[in-house]
Amino acid sequence: MKPFIEPETLPSAIPSSGPDRRRFLKAGLAVTGAALTGGVRAAPPPWMTRPGAPLSNYGQPSPHERAVIRWVAANPDAPGNGISWTPLERLEGIITPSGLHFERHHNGVPQIDPAVHRLVVHGLVVKSSSFGIDDLLRYPQTSRQCFVECGGNGNAGWHLEPMQAPAGNVHGLASCSEWTGVPLATVLEECGLQPNAKWLIAEGADAAAMNVSIPLEKALDDALLALYQNGERLRPENGYPLRLILPGWEGVTNVKWLHRLQLAEQPAMARNETAKYTELLPSGQARQFSFVMEAKSLITRPSAGQSLPGPGLHPISGLAWSGRGAIRRVEVSADGGKTWQDAALDPPVLPKCFTRFRLPWRWDGSPAVLKSRATDETGYVQPERQTLIAERGRHGYFHYNAIVSWAVAADGSVSHVYA
Amino acid sequence: MKPFIEPETLPSAIPSSGPDRRRFLKAGLAVTGAALTGGVRAAPPPWMTRPGAPLSNYGQPSPHERAVIRWVAANPDAPGNGISWTPLERLEGIITPSGLHFERHHNGVPQIDPAVHRLVVHGLVVKSSSFGIDDLLRYPQTSRQCFVECGGNGNAGWHLEPMQAPAGNVHGLASCSEWTGVPLATVLEECGLQPNAKWLIAEGADAAAMNVSIPLEKALDDALLALYQNGERLRPENGYPLRLILPGWEGVTNVKWLHRLQLAEQPAMARNETAKYTELLPSGQARQFSFVMEAKSLITRPSAGQSLPGPGLHPISGLAWSGRGAIRRVEVSADGGKTWQDAALDPPVLPKCFTRFRLPWRWDGSPAVLKSRATDETGYVQPERQTLIAERGRHGYFHYNAIVSWAVAADGSVSHVYA
Repeated sequence: MKPFIEPETLPSAIPSSGPDRRRFLKAGLAVTGAALTGGVRAAPPPWMTRPGAPLSNYGQPSPHERAVIRWVAANPDAPGNGISWTPLERLEGIITPSGLHFERHHNGVPQIDPAVHRLVVHGLVVKSSSFGIDDLLRYPQTSRQCFVECGGNGNAGWHLEPMQAPAGNVHGLASCSEWTGVPLATVLEECGLQPNAKWLIAEGADAAAMNVSIPLEKALDDALLALYQNGERLRPENGYPLRLILPGWEGVTNVKWLHRLQLAEQPAMARNETAKYTELLPSGQARQFSFVMEAKSLITRPSAGQSLPGPGLHPISGLAWSGRGAIRRVEVSADGGKTWQDAALDPPVLPKCFTRFRLPWRWDGSPAVLKSRATDETGYVQPERQTLIAERGRHGYFHYNAIVSWAVAADGSVSHVYA
Repeated sequence: MKPFIEPETLPSAIPSSGPDRRRFLKAGLAVTGAALTGGVRAAPPPWMTRPGAPLSNYGQPSPHERAVIRWVAANPDAPGNGISWTPLERLEGIITPSGLHFERHHNGVPQIDPAVHRLVVHGLVVKSSSFGIDDLLRYPQTSRQCFVECGGNGNAGWHLEPMQAPAGNVHGLASCSEWTGVPLATVLEECGLQPNAKWLIAEGADAAAMNVSIPLEKALDDALLALYQNGERLRPENGYPLRLILPGWEGVTNVKWLHRLQLAEQPAMARNETAKYTELLPSGQARQFSFVMEAKSLITRPSAGQSLPGPGLHPISGLAWSGRGAIRRVEVSADGGKTWQDAALDPPVLPKCFTRFRLPWRWDGSPAVLKSRATDETGYVQPERQTLIAERGRHGYFHYNAIVSWAVAADGSVSHVYA
C-alpha cells in the first residue's frame, strides 16, 4: 500500500516554521483529508502563527480549565468556617493537585509566619520542648503518598433520597498527596515519654485552636509532622507550615497549623471528638474515636451529572482507598450488583493511598446501574448501603463508606441512585 | 514523675477559642517554659486572635514561599525561547508540583483552545485519522509517575570549572509528575500501521512547530498521549491540552502541544535531532538519537549555596532516577568517594521515576566532600566525572550524568567541586 505522503520528502518539506510549513500543512492535509474522521484546518491555528507566552516562575492551569475548582460551602457570617470539595470527577490518577485539595476549616486559614511558628511538646514527657520549623528540618524526614479524608465525607449517603450532585461534591472531602516530614515518633523519642502517657492532644494555631486527642500507638506508628505536600512546602489551607498527618485516619485528626502536642493519660474530650465526629448508633450509644476510614470506592467517570454520548465502548475510571492498608481488589458491576468484574488497578498500589481502578465498558444503550466495590488487604469489603444502614442507623452522619450507584439512562445521562 | 500539667484539667481549661484559652496558654507555657529549648510566647500569635482567610476555589503557596520559583533564562529578544529550572534544592519527595515543573520552549507557550485542538495521525497508517481531545478521552487511559529530563540537564558539568549555583539551577531541568493519558499504542492500533512504518514524527502546535522523530518500538512500548498531570489537566507550559510522554527519554522527545504524528520509514532529521540534541564525541563522530537518560543522582540537601549551622547530625536527602528502569541502589560518600554507604530509598521506588534517597550524616566539623552514586536495575552505575569525560570528551553538551560532588567547608558552607 502506497503511503499517503512520501516520508523522504519530509526533511526538506517541513522547515520548523515559516510560510513553507503552512503550505505543506495545507497540502498534506488535503492529501490525507479524505480519510480523516475529524475536522481539517485549511490554515494553521492562531497559536501557531505568533510567539506564545514567555516562561514563568510559577505556573497556573489553563484558562480553559477555570471550571475545575473546589466547590466552597461556608457560613456567610463566618466565611472561614466551612468546607470545599475536591472535584474528583474532573481529575485523574491518584495525586490531587495541592490547589484542589479539599478544605475543612473551623475559623479560616491563618497566615502563619514560619520564622515565628513553634511546635511545643509538653505534658507527660521527660523534657518539654519547643521546635521551630528550622529545628524540625534538622531531623531525618520521610515521604509517603496517602489520602486524607474528612470523617463526614459522603454523608449525603445517609439522606433518604440520593443527592444529585457531581461525584466530587458528595465524595470530594477526600484528597491524596505526597506528604514529607519528620516521623512524629522521632520527636517524641527526643522528648522522652513518661510511662503513663497514653494520649497525645494535638492543637492547631488557627483562631479556633482546633484540637483532638490521638492514641499514643498511632503517634508512634506512622504519624508524620508534615512540612511538604506534593514536593513543595505545605499550602496555607493545608496547614502551613506544619501539619500532623495520620495516614488512614479521619481528616479532623490530621491537625493543621500544628503548634502544640500535649502528652496525657486521658483524651481531652474536645468538641471535635464529643459533640462532633462521633456516630450515634441505633442502640442510642455513640461510636467515639472511630478514627480509621474504612475501605471505600467510587466510579468518578462516568458519574452523576455526566452524560455518555452514545452506545459503545466507554472507559470506567474510579478511586478506591482504605485507612487499613492497601486496596487488594476493586470489582465493578454494570447491572446494579448482580454480576461483578475485576477492574485493573494502576500501579503503584500503596497502603492508605488512593488507588486508581479502570475497566473498559461496552454500553449497549439500555438503562444500566454502575457500582464499584473495594476490598482492602485486611479482607474488609465495602458494604452495600442497606448493610451499612442496618448496622449504623441513619443518624451516624460520619464514616459513610457504602457502595455508590450511578444509573445510566437510555439517553446516556447519569444520575445518583440507591440500588 | 509528676506531669507538668494535669491532663484532667484540659477539657475545661481549653475552650476552643476566646480569652480563657489565651490565659491558659500563658499559664501553661509558664509552667513548662523552663524546660523548653526554644522561645516561649507570652501572648498567642496574631493569627490565633482573628479569623483566618476564607476557603478558596484554587489554592496557592504561602506568601512566605515566594522565593521558591523556577529560575528563568530566556532570550530577551524572544522571551518564549528559553528554559526555567525546577528548584530541586527547595523541594522534597518525588512529585514536582506542576507550577514548578521545568520548562524548555522554542517559541513560547501557545494558548490552545482544547475544543479546537486536534491530533492528526497520518503517513504510513492504514487509516489517517484526526482526534479531538474529547475523542481521546473516550479511550482507556493509564497513569504513571515518571520523570521528564531535558537532554541538556546538568550540562554545566562539562565546564572546566565547577559552576557555583543552587543545585536546581544546574540539575533542575528534570521534574517528576504523575501523567495520565491514552497509551499511544492504542491509537496507533486504531489507525493501523503499514509494514514499512519504522518512525513516528511528532510535532507540536507551538509557533516553532517543534518536531522530532521517535522509533516505532518506543511508541508501541510505554508512550503515552498525556492529558493529565498530577491529577489535573496538563498545565499550558507542559503541553496543554496534549503531550507525548516517553518515559525515561530525553525531554525534547516528549513533544508538547502535540498535534501531528506522522508514521514514516525514516526519521525527519529535524533541527532538534541533528544540529541540537546530538553529542560530538572525541572521535569526531556524533551520537544521534541518544534518547535514553542514563542513571543519575544528586544530593539536594545539603547542596551548593546552602550552609550547615554546625557539627552534628544532618539529614542527607537527594534524588536518583534512570531512564532504563528502577533505581536499585544509591550510595553516599562523605569522604570524596573513598568510602560509600547505602542510602535508604523512600517507597515507592518506581521505574523511570524520581526516587528519594536519605541518609543521616554526622558531621564532625572538618572539611568533607559529599557524593551520591546511583545504580539502576540494569546494573548501570552512575560514572565519576573523569570517566564520563574520558568516554565522551568535552563537547558533548547533552546527556551529562556524572556523580555530583559538594564540598562542605569547616564553616559549614557548601560549594560545588570536581573531586
